Amino acid sequence: MAAALPGPRLRPHVKAHKSTALARRQAEAGHRSFTCATVREVEGMAAAGLGQDLLLANETLETERLAAVQGAEVTLAVDSEATVEAAAAGGIRRVVIDVNVGMPRCGCPPEDAGRLAEVARTRGLEVRGVMGYEGHVVGLPDRGARTAMVEDSMKALLRAHDAVGGDLISAGGTGTFDINTWATEIQAGSYVLMDNAYAELDLPFRRALQILATVISAWPSHAVLNCGLKALGMDHGNPTMEDGHQVWFVSDEHITFSPATPVKVGDRLRVLPGHVDPTVAYHERMFVVDGETVVDEWPVDLRGW
Amino acid sequence: MAAALPGPRLRPHVKAHKSTALARRQAEAGHRSFTCATVREVEGMAAAGLGQDLLLANETLETERLAAVQGAEVTLAVDSEATVEAAAAGGIRRVVIDVNVGMPRCGCPPEDAGRLAEVARTRGLEVRGVMGYEGHVVGLPDRGARTAMVEDSMKALLRAHDAVGGDLISAGGTGTFDINTWATEIQAGSYVLMDNAYAELDLPFRRALQILATVISAWPSHAVLNCGLKALGMDHGNPTMEDGHQVWFVSDEHITFSPATPVKVGDRLRVLPGHVDPTVAYHERMFVVDGETVVDEWPVDLRGW
Repeated sequence: MAAALPGPRLRPHVKAHKSTALARRQAEAGHRSFTCATVREVEGMAAAGLGQDLLLANETLETERLAAVQGAEVTLAVDSEATVEAAAAGGIRRVVIDVNVGMPRCGCPPEDAGRLAEVARTRGLEVRGVMGYEGHVVGLPDRGARTAMVEDSMKALLRAHDAVGGDLISAGGTGTFDINTWATEIQAGSYVLMDNAYAELDLPFRRALQILATVISAWPSHAVLNCGLKALGMDHGNPTMEDGHQVWFVSDEHITFSPATPVKVGDRLRVLPGHVDPTVAYHERMFVVDGETVVDEWPVDLRGW
Repeated sequence: MAAALPGPRLRPHVKAHKSTALARRQAEAGHRSFTCATVREVEGMAAAGLGQDLLLANETLETERLAAVQGAEVTLAVDSEATVEAAAAGGIRRVVIDVNVGMPRCGCPPEDAGRLAEVARTRGLEVRGVMGYEGHVVGLPDRGARTAMVEDSMKALLRAHDAVGGDLISAGGTGTFDINTWATEIQAGSYVLMDNAYAELDLPFRRALQILATVISAWPSHAVLNCGLKALGMDHGNPTMEDGHQVWFVSDEHITFSPATPVKVGDRLRVLPGHVDPTVAYHERMFVVDGETVVDEWPVDLRGW
């Protein structure tokens, strides 16, 4: 990734991995500005000495708590007079105007961005630019459609930027990291661990995140792993398994599967999650392995809110 | 619940709430034997002084760790020679034979239970009886079908019990708490907090678990809450909202919804999760509220494995 988007061209999103240990690796690769989704993530990144340039790419009313973070330069997304007012009242100094570029979530209409920037400046806030996440585009399997829709979204964001000013045009995700050439920086997060959903696209990143589970029950018809709903984000559906084993269903602490080849109690098998972010958020730590050897352990220390 | 299933007739399953504070309330209501799904839950319950009679109703090979738990009387489910051997080798003293009563997950065939009990006794283990969770039945909406299928399942479990012996016939869940009259004890967990899935059934329990989220972005077409995939078990689908607000979709840290009545930034709204167990497992604590007043705070202290 650092070759495609060197240094500040990538603003890695820590929400995907929630680990300052992994964020430090990203910083060592040259990316020292980060994207966060929660105040807790900002606090944790600052405490880890990774707070050089943190963008909370999300609206929050907990602005006093955010402004109290020590040892970090924090920029906050705002998309309304209410969130601008909360930022100013809480003691936040820098904001970006969050623009709706096609996905119905946070973000003001592009045509309202300039006015909102003026409101922010009137309230004494530095407006660093705009952000606009094309979340409705990043997962499209067809690259042609993805490219066309990114262009539409970014044209809207550039219109907003014309009215807002500032250095930052922050957008993009793993699915558009090499397509979105309009943004000054890309907020990709999933690329670093990947998941089954993004693996469906034509991306050069491999699935690094796996759950090593143990067979605890094995029968002629099926077998059971000790890994379940409390270890897996399930919004993208069931996880998959390697070696042709077929997942039947997932319970709180179990995966029932149809073995492609015989398995026995005690076997350790790898489970590939559908969606990285809500999967990692269930776990206290990740183990870094080289083959069968654990070479490092990364606490998932940015969980919670 | 204590009126329907007094004292040891209910063995509350702590996996639903993962909170020793709430388990203590259940103990105060007379239920002092508990069901656990993980070794961590057993450890935490023992450390909290609630280890009088803990059933780990799940197979595990981490038997040395389980046997090392201090201050608890632990019984472990076994369903194979391999898990019996692991129990004996690890220093476990008491087991139940886990029987497959119709759901393809853990559990030996009913006709194999007697032989397995003999293997366990030969290895020096006390066999307290049988367990067999009718997980394929507990969620059936039609009470007649549920009743008929519980009977089938429990007849299989009673056959197994005839061959195994022991005092315990442990089974059941929230959906069958008043239907399963064959088991000596019911392992219900969800009843105490409930969720949208169980609320579809004809049960006398109310949904106590809600997520209080804040509107952070509001537009004519939609609004956004600061609660998302990392706060909600999603295997039963989207959560719902009160007051007619319609959930559109859920992102990592957001719910986008269609307001039934106008909402504004800062409004706090209640979100009702689809599935209690994987929802609670995301949270560090639960707040107990009486109207708008927080009257207690319960750490979710049994998370992880």
